[in-house]
Amino acid sequence: MDLEKYIAIVEDYPSKGISFKDITPLMADGEAFRYATDQIVEYAKEKEIDIVVGPEARGFIIGCPVAYALGVGFAPVRKPGKLPRETIQVDYALEYGTNTLTIHKDAVKPGQRVLIIDDLLATGGTIEATKKLVEKLGGKVVGAAFLIELSYLNGRDKLKDIEIKTLLSY
Amino acid sequence: MDLEKYIAIVEDYPSKGISFKDITPLMADGEAFRYATDQIVEYAKEKEIDIVVGPEARGFIIGCPVAYALGVGFAPVRKPGKLPRETIQVDYALEYGTNTLTIHKDAVKPGQRVLIIDDLLATGGTIEATKKLVEKLGGKVVGAAFLIELSYLNGRDKLKDIEIKTLLSY
Repeated sequence: MDLEKYIAIVEDYPSKGISFKDITPLMADGEAFRYATDQIVEYAKEKEIDIVVGPEARGFIIGCPVAYALGVGFAPVRKPGKLPRETIQVDYALEYGTNTLTIHKDAVKPGQRVLIIDDLLATGGTIEATKKLVEKLGGKVVGAAFLIELSYLNGRDKLKDIEIKTLLSY
Repeated sequence: MDLEKYIAIVEDYPSKGISFKDITPLMADGEAFRYATDQIVEYAKEKEIDIVVGPEARGFIIGCPVAYALGVGFAPVRKPGKLPRETIQVDYALEYGTNTLTIHKDAVKPGQRVLIIDDLLATGGTIEATKKLVEKLGGKVVGAAFLIELSYLNGRDKLKDIEIKTLLSY
């Protein structure tokens, strides 16, 4: 299936000069949504993972169906204040300023094999921070999977020690 | 399966006097997450739905696996500024002030049968607004499903013309 035709390109969003890749047409099509999810499920099966971890909010969109299909759990990574129990946090640099991500302290158990899932790999900052959160809890990141990679942003450079699976590359 | 033991009760979150129902332990357990999702999938099968609609971010957590399992699409409802293409919006009242939700103009097609999914039914404001968005686009809401209902908040009063399915009630 040619997934690319289900991605809407939105120019100058969220700011001038950015060519945004919108996955909502893919999600809206039952066949395309299932096909894309199953590609990641097949990849994950070889990894013998214990839990999927995904950053909010678009990481939930593919991450939760993959966890469901594999019969494993899902742990959300969220912005500060969004998780109700005790969390740990990681700060990371953005182009201007910093961002913070949190995870529940009991979300990943020591030794668990973790697959990180998000919709899109851009500069890799969010995924690098997510990986640090998992590792702080003693989990082992055995891979990261994305619908889309913006290869010109070189996100893989920040994630050299993780195996990366992407379905579409721009 | 007794799903209640997978819900963490967090007192005074997000503010004093609120007894928050945290679904993350349920999500973290592969068996419980699949069981809960499958309960909603079974319910949805009878409804012959075309698409699942869920409000961000926790609506994605159950809504996306249900859509995946049924082989139908998923359309996100988000806060203003989060959807990149042309949207419609609905404002609704909160205890203090108002909130706004948006949906892409092409997310639901006229005549489509829609199941709304969220993690929790509280006062019903979010779900009532989501229903209005679907109906503005010509969709027909054939049901709404939740992991949890806070029955003392009487959310059903706002949603009298929708059939509601919940797995746990407090």
